[in-house]
Amino acid sequence: MREVYQEQLGKLADELASMSTMVGTAMERATQALLETDLTLAEQVIEDDMQVDEARSRAEEHAFGLLALQAPVAGDLRTVISTIHAAEDLERMGDLALHVAKTARRRHPHPVLPPDVREYFSEMGRIAVKLAGRVHEVIRTQDVEAARGLEEDDDEMDDLHRHLFTVMMSPEWSHGVAAAVDVTLLGRFYERFADHAVAVARRVVFIVTGKMPTS
Amino acid sequence: MREVYQEQLGKLADELASMSTMVGTAMERATQALLETDLTLAEQVIEDDMQVDEARSRAEEHAFGLLALQAPVAGDLRTVISTIHAAEDLERMGDLALHVAKTARRRHPHPVLPPDVREYFSEMGRIAVKLAGRVHEVIRTQDVEAARGLEEDDDEMDDLHRHLFTVMMSPEWSHGVAAAVDVTLLGRFYERFADHAVAVARRVVFIVTGKMPTS
Repeated sequence: MREVYQEQLGKLADELASMSTMVGTAMERATQALLETDLTLAEQVIEDDMQVDEARSRAEEHAFGLLALQAPVAGDLRTVISTIHAAEDLERMGDLALHVAKTARRRHPHPVLPPDVREYFSEMGRIAVKLAGRVHEVIRTQDVEAARGLEEDDDEMDDLHRHLFTVMMSPEWSHGVAAAVDVTLLGRFYERFADHAVAVARRVVFIVTGKMPTS
Repeated sequence: MREVYQEQLGKLADELASMSTMVGTAMERATQALLETDLTLAEQVIEDDMQVDEARSRAEEHAFGLLALQAPVAGDLRTVISTIHAAEDLERMGDLALHVAKTARRRHPHPVLPPDVREYFSEMGRIAVKLAGRVHEVIRTQDVEAARGLEEDDDEMDDLHRHLFTVMMSPEWSHGVAAAVDVTLLGRFYERFADHAVAVARRVVFIVTGKMPTS
């Protein structure tokens, strides 16, 4: 029984790891679509999002199967529920990449980003992809220290996000309100992506240590 | 066994219903704080958010207890997991009311909203509070038709949200970029609040009918 449980739980972890790869790729491509005004790439991200949703449904189905067949209690029960939550966070990360891609498509053939914030989004995109990679590593290794490392990347994201507002509010901002609205929403998408990555890592810490890290 | 299960599930529903009341009140007060530049009210919402988080923890603990002691399968298992998801949506609705209150506090004693969008937020606030009330009713009655009614309110919210962008993008917008950034984020908070309300209602439909409504 225990062996079957561990095997099924391992499969569930594989699914979450695979989802983290998918959403990392989605955010990498969405960022490139945004920076390069690449419609084809934006559409690919939009099309591929369904796969993330399907992966999430599959993970949830397997978690249900595990709960129904193994009826785990105490720590095991919390582990399985945590994987369901993690799958939800990962799906949401995919949605946020999708929102970035849709913004790029909506403004095509015009670039969404004024030149003075391009670098910010390039950096935010890099950190987002790094975070998705770290989530993958944390799920694979269940390394609690690595999980804590995500908080630093998230702080970096928050800093960039704050600076973005400073740029828009400065008297030098010459791109008007429409560009500011797009930049505000895009900034929020990247920031939320990072938040959900941290949430997944925290759930892994919880699975390993039995304690939810405080923020 | 079955009776105990039903009784515990009933308690869980009570907790969700109580959370929906809390987040409805939070959004009502946050909107008033925003419209009236009321710092005391904003701070009350910020302080009270902890109660929503605690209610969510309690609901999740009870759901865990139910899973561990009753080991429900099939439909019952899905019901309990759905309540865990619903509690998460409701907590998120509380967070979004909190974000509105924090925005009001950040700009105090200045009003956040330029006069031309006040009416929009008054309406969005009204719909958000109505949605929280409907969520409460749906949890109480498990009425599938009432659950579908939320989609209409959500459409109304989306319409208002879209119009908000039109106002900001119009050449008549004279309030600059800083106000537009605030309005953009606030609009998103209300829109997401409505989305989560719809998500809770859908979970109730799922619990009652065994089928997740498609959007």
